Amino acid sequence: MRAHIITIGDEILIGQIVDTNSAFIAKELDKIGIEVHEISSISDDKQHILESLASAKERAEVVIITGGLGPTKDDVTKHTFCEFFKDHLVEDATVLQNIECIFKHHVNRPILPANRSQALVPSKSTVLMNRNGTAPGMWMKDGNTVFISMPGVPFEMKALMTDEVIPRLQREFSRPFIVHKTLQTYGMGESEIADKIEDWENMLPKEIKLAYLPALGKVRLRLSTRGPVKEVLDQKLEEQVISLHKLIGDIIVGYDDDELIETVVGRLFVQKGKTLAVAESCTGGQIASAITSIPGASAYFKGGMVTYATHSKVELLKIEQSLIDEHSVVSAPVAEAMASAVKNWYKSDYAISTTGNAGPSKGDSDAEVGTVIIGIATPGGVFSQEFKMGSQRERVISKSVNKAFELLQKEILKN
Amino acid sequence: MRAHIITIGDEILIGQIVDTNSAFIAKELDKIGIEVHEISSISDDKQHILESLASAKERAEVVIITGGLGPTKDDVTKHTFCEFFKDHLVEDATVLQNIECIFKHHVNRPILPANRSQALVPSKSTVLMNRNGTAPGMWMKDGNTVFISMPGVPFEMKALMTDEVIPRLQREFSRPFIVHKTLQTYGMGESEIADKIEDWENMLPKEIKLAYLPALGKVRLRLSTRGPVKEVLDQKLEEQVISLHKLIGDIIVGYDDDELIETVVGRLFVQKGKTLAVAESCTGGQIASAITSIPGASAYFKGGMVTYATHSKVELLKIEQSLIDEHSVVSAPVAEAMASAVKNWYKSDYAISTTGNAGPSKGDSDAEVGTVIIGIATPGGVFSQEFKMGSQRERVISKSVNKAFELLQKEILKN
Repeated sequence: MRAHIITIGDEILIGQIVDTNSAFIAKELDKIGIEVHEISSISDDKQHILESLASAKERAEVVIITGGLGPTKDDVTKHTFCEFFKDHLVEDATVLQNIECIFKHHVNRPILPANRSQALVPSKSTVLMNRNGTAPGMWMKDGNTVFISMPGVPFEMKALMTDEVIPRLQREFSRPFIVHKTLQTYGMGESEIADKIEDWENMLPKEIKLAYLPALGKVRLRLSTRGPVKEVLDQKLEEQVISLHKLIGDIIVGYDDDELIETVVGRLFVQKGKTLAVAESCTGGQIASAITSIPGASAYFKGGMVTYATHSKVELLKIEQSLIDEHSVVSAPVAEAMASAVKNWYKSDYAISTTGNAGPSKGDSDAEVGTVIIGIATPGGVFSQEFKMGSQRERVISKSVNKAFELLQKEILKN
Repeated sequence: MRAHIITIGDEILIGQIVDTNSAFIAKELDKIGIEVHEISSISDDKQHILESLASAKERAEVVIITGGLGPTKDDVTKHTFCEFFKDHLVEDATVLQNIECIFKHHVNRPILPANRSQALVPSKSTVLMNRNGTAPGMWMKDGNTVFISMPGVPFEMKALMTDEVIPRLQREFSRPFIVHKTLQTYGMGESEIADKIEDWENMLPKEIKLAYLPALGKVRLRLSTRGPVKEVLDQKLEEQVISLHKLIGDIIVGYDDDELIETVVGRLFVQKGKTLAVAESCTGGQIASAITSIPGASAYFKGGMVTYATHSKVELLKIEQSLIDEHSVVSAPVAEAMASAVKNWYKSDYAISTTGNAGPSKGDSDAEVGTVIIGIATPGGVFSQEFKMGSQRERVISKSVNKAFELLQKEILKN
């Protein structure tokens, strides 16, 4: 049971946007046991679309197409479908009704011809109703392959995928289960982990696959297997996870498929009934953003301060100017004073602070670009750690945010 | 002159990671006039790699491959190259030296066999030195097509692309120029813009392409053209931009290819010598993050406060409890009081505040999910605006951040 995802649109081919739709679709298909064999991004050129549809049809039973629809560009795509399926366009009454309804409630102007023509669909297609936009989804069967077309706007595509496409695929096809278990590790490199678990890896049953996914300061280990009975698969993976934990338990921070460390840390704070505040300099609000991007953060997150400029550290956090003069603004004493100050301010149990130089040029201190000091205040005291995070601004910030959560997790686990 | 990008790795096909590498590569190729014809993501299966290499060779002169390299997985990929190019692996002395150097300076353990085997490359390939990691890039010529392989770690790939691949491609191939001009608009839908500029669009010369790129609360309009003389192309597009400005100048906020509104706003603050502070509730630090993600923000950004919980608004921003009791925490008076308070705190010229309910469940107020109020304090006074941002948490936050910058830009332009 194989799928091929085709994304139509020049904006991806010139690198103007990143294709996030395909990852979402792939993950949803994977969950219901449909293996994605290939993802292609192609231009909105008729000949290219025709070739890709033909090639996908040879190799997959499910072809999912996104993009190429929308009030200003769906002509090419829909006419190309008609040519490929030997079909013609007809106006669909329910789609037209949906467009009229969207305009009545959300748009302060009359329907334009370009909007009305979005109600045209290939006569043999089944419409997948898009409640969030004017371009409908389409389900088109051709021989043994089903072609599904959705608009490229992520929000509209996601709702169509979840509400229409997945349930239909589940009804239409019988599929094996695919189960993954992903372990997040922090603080050890890919090859070193591989070396530590080599014997275990060599003993791994053939039907279980292991993948290493390295990223900034962390490596995820993914175990995958497939088969007809989900419980059997879950148990098989669980046994391997237990073995792995014995070998590298000290670097594993999370077990959920794609759980972020901020989610793990957040859950720990809620479980332990503790609260958190942050004072950010070089991370500029990204620790607070990461915390509050997860629903329910208000249960433990008291708030944050972004004291970006040196004088705001003095004026707002009441860091002594003499401390800064003596040690420089990027220093352990300042990081610790920031963490203590914000902890007192917000009356929280824990606080974390960052001060550093993310680059590209030196800021209010002489610290080398990439130097970051993280301060942590706990119910028992305050301490700090210094890191060299490289020279690329974006990476320095991301690594600092990850490292802050890693340190926080270690501390909250102690109490 | 066409290119095909191939990304190798199951993690993309199961949706575990988003392929950001291809967008970077595509943008770099586009800059030097190489058109990306297709981007494919495939599994790290030998047969699949062989098929994709063969198919890409038929259709492109440049094939760029990322992923499939790394201490734990480069066996398959490199052996597959050898099979495809009828070659064999040899140890490259400079690559081995680089690995030894990286281990000596950055890794606190001996070199493992898996690391050493990264120095093996196809004998006919030219090594592209990777200073940031142990997996080398490779340049392999086969007939009229050049195949370039790079590791999938974004940081390593980007440096190789910029330092090695682009200069070599520029030397090896003569290419036309491709020029784009992208206009960012805020506050009007795709079809309405299309309607407003219909006559202009119909008169557009055939060699200039127009694309609509809609996103949350904004639509980008991209003009593209290609030809041998860059100055001619620039001028052609500039003329069209002037015509467009006459039609929809009121909704255009930026002209640069991929300039973010936070960059535009930041530049305006610097130009006008004004300063900014933020007080964020529902946006949880994302406005501050967006501001500080751009180098040089310290020139105008005084700092921010993330007052996520209601009591932190009272305790830290000194918002009167009676004001909250009377109007609720998600209200215009509270948004305005927050903006004024943070402006006073940081002694800034301007301040922006957000209070709202991003969902999924109601927070400290009875406000409907998706209600967001943005407060703006200027040298002349304070005001606020209320918005309904939908029901999806992530979208509510993103839209609020975009809207805040849009409002800020309007205000700073007035002064």
